Amino acid sequence: MPGLHRTKDIPKNISSFYSALTQELASAFQSKKEQQPLMANPDPEMSGGWEQKAAQGESAVHTCQQKAKARLLLLLSYISGDMEVFAEWMKKQFFLLQLLDWVLRGAAQVMFVNNPLSGLVIFAGLILQNRWWALNGFVGTLFATISALILQQSRGAIAAGLYGYNGILVGLLMAVFSNAGDWYWWLLLPNIVMSMTCPIVSSALASINSRWDLPVFTLPFNILVCLHMVATGHYNHHFPQVLIQPRTELANITWAEVNVAKLFTAVPVGIGQVYGCDNPWTGGIFMVALFISSPITCAHATIGSAVGMISGLALAAPFEAIYFGLWGYNCVLACIAIGGMFYALTWQVHLLAITCAFFCAYLGSAIANVMSTFGLPACTWPFCLSALTFLLFTTETNTIFKLPLANVAYPERNLRFFWKLRKKEKLEREEKEIDEEKWRAKEQELLGNDKEVLRMERMDGKEKEGKEINKMMIQEEEMMEVALGEVSSMAENV
Amino acid sequence: MPGLHRTKDIPKNISSFYSALTQELASAFQSKKEQQPLMANPDPEMSGGWEQKAAQGESAVHTCQQKAKARLLLLLSYISGDMEVFAEWMKKQFFLLQLLDWVLRGAAQVMFVNNPLSGLVIFAGLILQNRWWALNGFVGTLFATISALILQQSRGAIAAGLYGYNGILVGLLMAVFSNAGDWYWWLLLPNIVMSMTCPIVSSALASINSRWDLPVFTLPFNILVCLHMVATGHYNHHFPQVLIQPRTELANITWAEVNVAKLFTAVPVGIGQVYGCDNPWTGGIFMVALFISSPITCAHATIGSAVGMISGLALAAPFEAIYFGLWGYNCVLACIAIGGMFYALTWQVHLLAITCAFFCAYLGSAIANVMSTFGLPACTWPFCLSALTFLLFTTETNTIFKLPLANVAYPERNLRFFWKLRKKEKLEREEKEIDEEKWRAKEQELLGNDKEVLRMERMDGKEKEGKEINKMMIQEEEMMEVALGEVSSMAENV
Amino acid sequence: MPGLHRTKDIPKNISSFYSALTQELASAFQSKKEQQPLMANPDPEMSGGWEQKAAQGESAVHTCQQKAKARLLLLLSYISGDMEVFAEWMKKQFFLLQLLDWVLRGAAQVMFVNNPLSGLVIFAGLILQNRWWALNGFVGTLFATISALILQQSRGAIAAGLYGYNGILVGLLMAVFSNAGDWYWWLLLPNIVMSMTCPIVSSALASINSRWDLPVFTLPFNILVCLHMVATGHYNHHFPQVLIQPRTELANITWAEVNVAKLFTAVPVGIGQVYGCDNPWTGGIFMVALFISSPITCAHATIGSAVGMISGLALAAPFEAIYFGLWGYNCVLACIAIGGMFYALTWQVHLLAITCAFFCAYLGSAIANVMSTFGLPACTWPFCLSALTFLLFTTETNTIFKLPLANVAYPERNLRFFWKLRKKEKLEREEKEIDEEKWRAKEQELLGNDKEVLRMERMDGKEKEGKEINKMMIQEEEMMEVALGEVSSMAENV
Repeated sequence: MPGLHRTKDIPKNISSFYSALTQELASAFQSKKEQQPLMANPDPEMSGGWEQKAAQGESAVHTCQQKAKARLLLLLSYISGDMEVFAEWMKKQFFLLQLLDWVLRGAAQVMFVNNPLSGLVIFAGLILQNRWWALNGFVGTLFATISALILQQSRGAIAAGLYGYNGILVGLLMAVFSNAGDWYWWLLLPNIVMSMTCPIVSSALASINSRWDLPVFTLPFNILVCLHMVATGHYNHHFPQVLIQPRTELANITWAEVNVAKLFTAVPVGIGQVYGCDNPWTGGIFMVALFISSPITCAHATIGSAVGMISGLALAAPFEAIYFGLWGYNCVLACIAIGGMFYALTWQVHLLAITCAFFCAYLGSAIANVMSTFGLPACTWPFCLSALTFLLFTTETNTIFKLPLANVAYPERNLRFFWKLRKKEKLEREEKEIDEEKWRAKEQELLGNDKEVLRMERMDGKEKEGKEINKMMIQEEEMMEVALGEVSSMAENV
Repeated sequence: MPGLHRTKDIPKNISSFYSALTQELASAFQSKKEQQPLMANPDPEMSGGWEQKAAQGESAVHTCQQKAKARLLLLLSYISGDMEVFAEWMKKQFFLLQLLDWVLRGAAQVMFVNNPLSGLVIFAGLILQNRWWALNGFVGTLFATISALILQQSRGAIAAGLYGYNGILVGLLMAVFSNAGDWYWWLLLPNIVMSMTCPIVSSALASINSRWDLPVFTLPFNILVCLHMVATGHYNHHFPQVLIQPRTELANITWAEVNVAKLFTAVPVGIGQVYGCDNPWTGGIFMVALFISSPITCAHATIGSAVGMISGLALAAPFEAIYFGLWGYNCVLACIAIGGMFYALTWQVHLLAITCAFFCAYLGSAIANVMSTFGLPACTWPFCLSALTFLLFTTETNTIFKLPLANVAYPERNLRFFWKLRKKEKLEREEKEIDEEKWRAKEQELLGNDKEVLRMERMDGKEKEGKEINKMMIQEEEMMEVALGEVSSMAENV
Repeated sequence: MPGLHRTKDIPKNISSFYSALTQELASAFQSKKEQQPLMANPDPEMSGGWEQKAAQGESAVHTCQQKAKARLLLLLSYISGDMEVFAEWMKKQFFLLQLLDWVLRGAAQVMFVNNPLSGLVIFAGLILQNRWWALNGFVGTLFATISALILQQSRGAIAAGLYGYNGILVGLLMAVFSNAGDWYWWLLLPNIVMSMTCPIVSSALASINSRWDLPVFTLPFNILVCLHMVATGHYNHHFPQVLIQPRTELANITWAEVNVAKLFTAVPVGIGQVYGCDNPWTGGIFMVALFISSPITCAHATIGSAVGMISGLALAAPFEAIYFGLWGYNCVLACIAIGGMFYALTWQVHLLAITCAFFCAYLGSAIANVMSTFGLPACTWPFCLSALTFLLFTTETNTIFKLPLANVAYPERNLRFFWKLRKKEKLEREEKEIDEEKWRAKEQELLGNDKEVLRMERMDGKEKEGKEINKMMIQEEEMMEVALGEVSSMAENV
């Protein structure tokens, strides 16, 4: 997702006794950061998560056991989060290797995860599900990334996989909804064309959404897959789509027939359906991929899928649709997005995320019914619309803090950013109070002074005008004093 | 509607010989204003309408008859407009009583009326129509308001009923379009859920619309009711909706069969249909409710409904639909919104309002046909879209003045605001002319002076730079003069 | 299209020996320019195209042949581009004649051409196609322009035909899609109503699009024609529309039956379909109209139409639809818009225009299928949406330069504007380098000087604050020096 990547500062002391790989990674870690954010300057003071904990832990340990633990934590810090050390190391590698890194990150970015290892695990899950789909997904990610390079998009955003995630979805879902069967090689043609259009649509949507500091989510994918499906349709010679029709009669729902086991597997299946996969094992693998990068994300994905399943039951949806995970995948994404990704995670935000998941399930049912009129699936429109609504929502409480898009990373780091900001604000408030007291004291002192008139005028100005002009006035004042001093010395000399 | 409420200044002399109620109201009237507008600081100079007239009238009266008249006017001032005196008095009452006030204002805000008495009359009309619907409407308004409180939305906006009006529509229309029959108690569940979602959607839409200083109108209601209806649909076990299908054959229209009496009753029915009511008496009651608060609003509502009816005939709509008020309700709202509510009422604006009503009728037919494809009613989408279009419209004439959203109250007060602004502008223009003349005279005087060069430079600067910097430069100039004076006196002393 | 017109400076020396018409035109040419742009001040330094070339050429020629050539070029300069000399001359004519000029320009503005001669040729083509349609188109343009005058829209925009082009499309297409047959005079009624609504919708959309510096394209036409068609529909007594239904079976496509000759005529037919015309000769006439004003536009129109035809074949569209030009017209407009009209034409932009045409064809198929569900044609929605997407697209390369909307004219002039801007930038860069060197030298000189402290402080300020404040500081500095000089001389005098 745009704005999900940023650079970070470098731990100063990483010990030198680790493995060669670790060393190489560490050196990369200390190399100059080039990765530029998509939309703003990242806070350079924001520091790494696991790695710092590890470093801090390390200095305290003495026994062997503790050492091993520290080593484990450090190793963990290299593979969790957004794997920045790895990203730094990658920058000095062969271009094709870099491209692979970007593609893997792109695959994981569908779930807001900027982590190549997660991407690798996700591809494993896809291969388990269907090799033809996995191939299409890979082609889609690859060409979307290449197209972004050709179109000279922000290098940092490309490296974070932000131009790939729509590509993988386009590739996958075009294969999933194609009625021509697997291994219909001609499909790669529209797949490549549509993937390469992704960065254009992404960039255009970002021009609009950035006005409200909103990400584009999977809107480019939704637009392009719907475009392809409705442009060709079920009755097409070259690229026929599966037949989707609106419901025209009462579904046969007998509560006695409900299969509780299947309802439970609907939770991982719902996570799998984000990538169009109905295999519960694939969904489970995706959960592992999420957990590697961010446990909070994984937890919210599970909650979202469960909320979707419950909503389906509440709205009397056919059981088959629920088992198939169709009620889950949008809620998964919406719950991740609101629950810690774009808002700093507090209890209120957690509740908001669950509300958003329920809203998303409702919206999902609505959009699925509307889209079926045109022979289209719901794609992830419900997620996009509900998440955008909940991100546009404003409130007067300060426990619901929307992160600036440029500072969005992963829930754990977002939290740290939020806490730092709070601490900084508190300090500033305190400082300001002290300053004000000092100012008042100084003012008192100056009263009765012959410079009173001048100063009063300046005060007046200060209240009326902005900070910048204030600074200048102070400079002017100093200049004036210097000038007066000069002149008076001159006058004295005479 | 957002931005429809604002605080106002307090008549200084309200005589003390009125009834206890009047006194209590008057004291409330003088209490500190807390009501904060949704989007900006209201003009504190804007003064009350009827009450001031009354106060002014009063000072002149001597005979008993005149006194009675003044008393009547003052009493009228307490129940017409937005009943601010009452709102002030309410602030010191028990919370549940306040909540009731907000709910009643919410009920009336559907028609842009911020008046609890109107709200009470409207509820009476609803009860006359159908008690189950009235109950649903009440529940909707109540929970929407409570949800806004929980979500910590602007207190002033809540107190003006701006979070309730979508709630009442959601509650009412969900009951109207439910196929499960009256008193199907389960319906209250989605009713409460949807009402409580209203403030979230309202807030999100306001984030977008505020960029163009536009209100959200009834968009949250439209979105949420359509959401509920299409998510469940006609074929649903829990919450079935009435069956709405697109027209597929020529309507049977015989002009000889037109019932003129029914066409005339279509005007109040059209007003009633704003709340989904087809009883002409209910419509009549609603007209009374409008008249209490603002006669201009009432007049435009009637005009709008008539325009809708005429458009229906012009576009060959089935007579039944016209009699049923389906062509009227959107035009009612559009005509009120443009005719004096968001624009200051002039003759040109009046014509614009009628144009907007025609456009709205056309759009209504179009949207009804499109929505029927999905089994949905038109709701008030036509009103929202046509009113937003006409509010986005810009022209070079100054007789069409769009009020800043924060200054929108009710047509009579808006007019007064507009007149004051005009007068102020005129005064400023005159003052400016005088100033310019003075400036020129002063300049003339200074020519030939040894300070000429300096001054010229400053002029240059003045033309190039903004106002703020100008102010500063004048201060600098003064400082300079002080400094020069100081130095020269020093020099002289030497 | 909004922002497509602008004023320009006046060649100083136009020789006096030409025909009376030429003289009159020339005098008009030198008259004061009043034409105000829709959105910004046009660059007054931008000079004419052909006329200047002609003037330059002229000064060098001596032989009769060269003279004739120069005369031809000058004459060409009067009829090509946006015929500004003629527009200036028109300003002093009778109002009805001016109105005719605006209507003709409006007719041509559909293709982004601001040229009354092109408009005349286009009307000729329309008459060749169908007189009733041509009449409706004329009525539409006329009333849209009149409505814009009544609604006090920008005079410059009206004079450039920017309020007429939606009108002609509304008029034409309402006639084309009417099921009541030709010469059904009642149709003029909704035609006039809808045309007169055009400026309102245009203005409203411009309020939104101007936030992203985007034109409104033909969106008002799309909205209003769809509005009219879906509001009345096929089953209407007064204004029945042609029956459009979604595809429900496999089209019969036999590649052996493809008619290559018809495929080639599909290119001009595609251009004709912009105005709803299926006559290839009409299309050819339109190409002439484009060529008169701007050869680049004409070339891109042809390329666009060809791209549309190829896309149709690639997506297995029924041959009849391709022959009928339905795949071409949107691509024609999209290719013109991107290829040199809103972007300065470079090779990269040319490729982008072709990409946009392909995207537009795809989108066209999609939108046609979606709209057919409501019995609607695709209109030019695909063009609008694809062109807006490609105009919102941003990239880091500087070979893709989007012109500010206020500077958009026609591709040839846009290119000149772009080149001038580049040259200016280059000069500025060079100047800046020289300045910096000088500054450094000056600074060096000042080091060791007693003013060092002051100057350093100012430097500091300069880096921190904006340009404007810089200017002021320099002035202050000068004032200070003058003041110091004054004082020191005073001191010396003592």
